[in-house]
Amino acid sequence: MDGMNERIGIGLVGLGTVGGAFARLIEENGELLHRRYGVRVELVRVGVARLGRPRQVAAALLVQGYEKVLADPRVDVVVELMGGVKQPRELITAALRAGKHVITGNKALIAEHGEELLTLAHRHGVQFRFEASVCGGIPVIKVIRESLSANRIRSLTGIVNGTTNYILTRMTESHASFSDALAEAQERGFAEADPTMDVDGTDAVQKMAILCSLAFGGWCSYRDALWQGIEGVTAKEVEFAAMSGFVFKLVAMGRVIDGMISVAVFPALVAAGHPLAAVRDEFNAVMIDSDFQGPSVLIGRGAGDRPSASSVAADLADLLAGSAPAGPAPGRSELYPSEQLTFRYFFHFVTENRPGIWAQVTGLLAEHEINIESVHQKWEDPDQPSDLYVLVDPVAEHRARAALAAISAAPGIFPESHFYRILPDQQVGA
Amino acid sequence: MDGMNERIGIGLVGLGTVGGAFARLIEENGELLHRRYGVRVELVRVGVARLGRPRQVAAALLVQGYEKVLADPRVDVVVELMGGVKQPRELITAALRAGKHVITGNKALIAEHGEELLTLAHRHGVQFRFEASVCGGIPVIKVIRESLSANRIRSLTGIVNGTTNYILTRMTESHASFSDALAEAQERGFAEADPTMDVDGTDAVQKMAILCSLAFGGWCSYRDALWQGIEGVTAKEVEFAAMSGFVFKLVAMGRVIDGMISVAVFPALVAAGHPLAAVRDEFNAVMIDSDFQGPSVLIGRGAGDRPSASSVAADLADLLAGSAPAGPAPGRSELYPSEQLTFRYFFHFVTENRPGIWAQVTGLLAEHEINIESVHQKWEDPDQPSDLYVLVDPVAEHRARAALAAISAAPGIFPESHFYRILPDQQVGA
Repeated sequence: MDGMNERIGIGLVGLGTVGGAFARLIEENGELLHRRYGVRVELVRVGVARLGRPRQVAAALLVQGYEKVLADPRVDVVVELMGGVKQPRELITAALRAGKHVITGNKALIAEHGEELLTLAHRHGVQFRFEASVCGGIPVIKVIRESLSANRIRSLTGIVNGTTNYILTRMTESHASFSDALAEAQERGFAEADPTMDVDGTDAVQKMAILCSLAFGGWCSYRDALWQGIEGVTAKEVEFAAMSGFVFKLVAMGRVIDGMISVAVFPALVAAGHPLAAVRDEFNAVMIDSDFQGPSVLIGRGAGDRPSASSVAADLADLLAGSAPAGPAPGRSELYPSEQLTFRYFFHFVTENRPGIWAQVTGLLAEHEINIESVHQKWEDPDQPSDLYVLVDPVAEHRARAALAAISAAPGIFPESHFYRILPDQQVGA
Repeated sequence: MDGMNERIGIGLVGLGTVGGAFARLIEENGELLHRRYGVRVELVRVGVARLGRPRQVAAALLVQGYEKVLADPRVDVVVELMGGVKQPRELITAALRAGKHVITGNKALIAEHGEELLTLAHRHGVQFRFEASVCGGIPVIKVIRESLSANRIRSLTGIVNGTTNYILTRMTESHASFSDALAEAQERGFAEADPTMDVDGTDAVQKMAILCSLAFGGWCSYRDALWQGIEGVTAKEVEFAAMSGFVFKLVAMGRVIDGMISVAVFPALVAAGHPLAAVRDEFNAVMIDSDFQGPSVLIGRGAGDRPSASSVAADLADLLAGSAPAGPAPGRSELYPSEQLTFRYFFHFVTENRPGIWAQVTGLLAEHEINIESVHQKWEDPDQPSDLYVLVDPVAEHRARAALAAISAAPGIFPESHFYRILPDQQVGA
């Protein structure tokens, strides 16, 4: 766009923490966009669920619901920050059909209906942007779609959920229990009242599925991915991992194997020297490896009102710059079967404290052709169950699962035994 | 651009390592650009200094010099990868005047003439892009100009030279001397035959001056910046720093102070927990702090043929996407006087090994109102000079310089005494 007298009208739907921060950003920094792109950005309508509450935007802008926002001819761009899936889908579908550009930070919506909405936007010749839907302030979608559009991306590895990273950082650095760390996260505003979607990995797997669809050009259903939360991680395990030179992180991985996309989210042991190990508290990071650029890492605040508002504004700036998102919507892709993935594993067996246990466990691992790296036993009270920690060489997931099932069923082994995966080592440099 | 039958003609000038890698990228990945932007990218002319040598591009494309590249009507975009300043400036000026877009990776040219060339491009309604000129494969220019165009950037802190980072990493991890580490860097291809511009900080200060002009909107002369190389760093100092919990890095800083841009490049002691401390070998990193996005870090290969070619291709992709760089060329800006900057300092005094030295040094520091944090003395042979390491609280640069001058001139102190600055601590998280 050109000429300093142009204007663009924004219709904002949703005035929660991110919506409020976006309104503040337009008020405080809108003039930067005017200076840089010669376009005056005007917030012309704000749709909220309920009127009559005190708000930080002019009362004259407020309307109830989103219909009046859509109906306003001055609205060129709809910014959807209301949350949920059903309503935002209706709103965005109607907006795109009406020839309005749409910007959203709605990760669940993109993970569920991104393909359909991108196709719709393409058909109507308007833009549908969602930088804020993945890793808040980190411009990972822009880097994948633009900076790397002439690269073949080999893999994505990241910490894409701030709540779980904050909890695991507290458990590591303050030796807190999961529940105490979660409570602290909620106090500090890094976890919601109902943290389920963050803690059980839903949020992370949805984000990685979105990144994979953009990086590898195929939508896949995150529901079928290997996907596990951090609820089961104990202070004992975090402490033992630290002694062994690892930190626990909720890791999200994406790559293409045999032409299929592999998406996996799980609490992993990350070597202390790994670039992701240094990413603390609520911060997020994404490592991208591609054929020409090579390995790179993006680190920043993965959530929060202002970073997310910043990403919404970055999408708006790209609209003003007149850049079109690369290519048509990605097609569909099959998911690589997760039981075929290979990792090093960290088994934690809870066992009776008596002779013969080691022989039994190591024998059953041998039967499953799993090669042991090291075994450590810890116990305080000889009459209590003891903890047997076993690190093993890389093996296929299905074999690790079979071994765990067989060993958990053996006499003297308690059913709460389980395993964690060890993230393959990678360094920035060397 | 739209319609799968469009084409864009590239005129490449310079077929060195980066030029060669770019030609390879177009050959290997050009089809990705075609699929994503619907435009066929064709290398139609390649200008080289000397014909007759074996090259990896079709002989039919080769011409001597750049005039024939400019004259070819099929050339829509000129990619300048010839190196140097005078010739590239002539070529790019002519290309912009002829209404051709220009992409370059020429950092020295941008640092010297970026303002003039951006203004010229703006006047002729064409694009002048230079992502590859700073930090090779790291999309730092894109992030500053686009992702953060609605943010007020507070500061830039980075490791922007791969050669010096490789040398300092070797000195830290293999206890190598500067000259041995430099030799190894040259063997491994991370340092040029004449490494002067890298080792003395020229390369780094030019890059940071470019980033500052884009982040803060004012060109400034890097020649007047605080600017120091790593030639003087000794294995002894690296070892002592490690014992004190620091690693040596060539740090480049940029910020706005009292409305003036401050650019500084110097070998600094970086706390082991700092995000930049983990950036090893030839890798680069840039930390950006801004008002809405908050702190973020970009890490990747800062040099090398393929990463640089990837950034040139990213600029090309942006051309195909039809996005225009944000706003007009930045204006000029004054440099903040470097002697007013404030740091913690690490003094290294070489002294006679006799009583009274501590009293003299600490006394003179007190006279300059410099507050001591700690003092350590190291010596093997009592008849040889000893090393006195003094860490002091934050103080203005001019005062640190005055103290160093006074102490170096005192009896029993040898003139090779000097100081290093300590990078303020910053963490990703917390």
